[in-house]
Amino acid sequence: MPLSEFSLIDRYFAAYRSQRPDVALGIGDDGALLIPPAGQHLVATVDTLVAGVHFFASANPESIGHKALAVNLSDLAAMGATPAWATLALTLPQADEAWLKRFCQGLFELADQHGVQLVGGDTTQGPVTTITLQALGFAPPGLALRRDRARPGDAIYVTGTPGDAGLALAAAFGKATVAAAYREDVQMRLEWPQPRLAEGVALRGIASAAIDVSDGLAQDLGHILERSSVGARLDVERLPLSPALFASLDWDAAISMALAGGDDYELCFTVPPERAAWLEHIAADWDCRCTRIGVITTELDLHLVRADGSSFFLKQRGYDHFG
Amino acid sequence: MPLSEFSLIDRYFAAYRSQRPDVALGIGDDGALLIPPAGQHLVATVDTLVAGVHFFASANPESIGHKALAVNLSDLAAMGATPAWATLALTLPQADEAWLKRFCQGLFELADQHGVQLVGGDTTQGPVTTITLQALGFAPPGLALRRDRARPGDAIYVTGTPGDAGLALAAAFGKATVAAAYREDVQMRLEWPQPRLAEGVALRGIASAAIDVSDGLAQDLGHILERSSVGARLDVERLPLSPALFASLDWDAAISMALAGGDDYELCFTVPPERAAWLEHIAADWDCRCTRIGVITTELDLHLVRADGSSFFLKQRGYDHFG
Repeated sequence: MPLSEFSLIDRYFAAYRSQRPDVALGIGDDGALLIPPAGQHLVATVDTLVAGVHFFASANPESIGHKALAVNLSDLAAMGATPAWATLALTLPQADEAWLKRFCQGLFELADQHGVQLVGGDTTQGPVTTITLQALGFAPPGLALRRDRARPGDAIYVTGTPGDAGLALAAAFGKATVAAAYREDVQMRLEWPQPRLAEGVALRGIASAAIDVSDGLAQDLGHILERSSVGARLDVERLPLSPALFASLDWDAAISMALAGGDDYELCFTVPPERAAWLEHIAADWDCRCTRIGVITTELDLHLVRADGSSFFLKQRGYDHFG
Repeated sequence: MPLSEFSLIDRYFAAYRSQRPDVALGIGDDGALLIPPAGQHLVATVDTLVAGVHFFASANPESIGHKALAVNLSDLAAMGATPAWATLALTLPQADEAWLKRFCQGLFELADQHGVQLVGGDTTQGPVTTITLQALGFAPPGLALRRDRARPGDAIYVTGTPGDAGLALAAAFGKATVAAAYREDVQMRLEWPQPRLAEGVALRGIASAAIDVSDGLAQDLGHILERSSVGARLDVERLPLSPALFASLDWDAAISMALAGGDDYELCFTVPPERAAWLEHIAADWDCRCTRIGVITTELDLHLVRADGSSFFLKQRGYDHFG
């Protein structure tokens, strides 16, 4: 028997919620009542996942719930924000209890891990599963990481090993073969991205600009360049390729995947030269790699350069809806 | 030529935005940076409209844009909140410039009317047009209108004339015929709901509980009863039926439509007896009707009563997804 809309909401969302002291009223009213901390900026972000576009409808529901929140927390990480609250707009073809239970498990496990409380939502019926999460967090005024403050001479860094999620996706579409030893690893990278929240907060006062890599490193770095009215030279040989990428693709294809694969949810950021040593000192303690991959320039272009100084040619910069 | 995702966002959303002084950074980064007013609660709400479920895909795009924001502002109104910011998650089958331009026109006209700034969004491709708006606003601590504070003896009120939008919807499905003189009126009520924001703010310190009527008056009042652990007696003869409803349906059907039609976006609220005179004094100046329709009781049930004391039987309480 399908549950009614209200039982759905009550059973799965109200039951799981954790209790933050700054939530005066959570799920169950026309709106949530939240208590923002004094003297902080509120950081708001929203991201949608559509079945068949952003995830396979057949993917395990826990990973879908995880990813729906993770991609939003990744945006907060790229702002250097501390996450606090989230709302969920969930459109489902039918009220499938088993699916919903597992979806919630993935979502709330990640929420609890980062102290995020789901404070509101809207459950609707529609032909295609569509998940929109909005995440809200805080950042001290003047210390949030933006896209528009990169300056010529700033070093460019990226966390983790971009390209792994893109490899998993290419394999799923039969366009690449993942070396057997790494199949599980790259699938994890696609389905269970880890938002770099601690790293984002650590970059306050250090990074001059930041973005999260969702549509491909080259394209997302391009947004920093455009918003900051600068260019960049990216040393492709410095790109932190994972063993999985090395083992599965030839060098050119691996570099292209790292630059344009997308779905990485790593941070790409810039650091003024005088703070680069400081950054590398603190990044040594991070759980993820942090690699210097290039430098901001005055030319309004992204120049991809090999070690011998020749240009690297990238066929496609990254993912574009309606492109 | 379809526009790329980024041109879409740039062209339509960034261009239209108004500038509130409490927006430190708007559209164009990983998140917005917002400055909440000191000492206020933040009120957050989210609502989704799916093509073919919540609106006809063929409806005029201005009205869809208007309604997507209106249903969220209606939730803020029901909280007694002052609206401030909104984010938009828009899933579209294709990048149709003409549609998008008209959609934005409807959305931004209403936003400007209420001083709301769109501060973020996510545009995605998907098979079904799905629109999720999140609205953020403020309310003074302790003065927000909730669902859980109605007490026995409180009078029950409703704004406007519920049932008109339901009549338009029934007519669209060939289940009712609207009297010719009123066709445009009821269509307006369905497609261009006006959120009762001024009324919601005016109810601070007066109403004991409030909800916005989206799924049908009986069902939405039911949420107040459930959350407040009370019942109600509703005098169906007191229901403010519009001339359109009177002219189009027999009395029983008109009452049922006012109770269960849905899509009204009116406010239903309760007022303690000692404040009823005050409420009726201020409501005399409102742009919309405000009608006393019943009283909160101790019995945990919604009792629909005719003038002669007999019970009114309602076949369906209201709209329920997955019901």
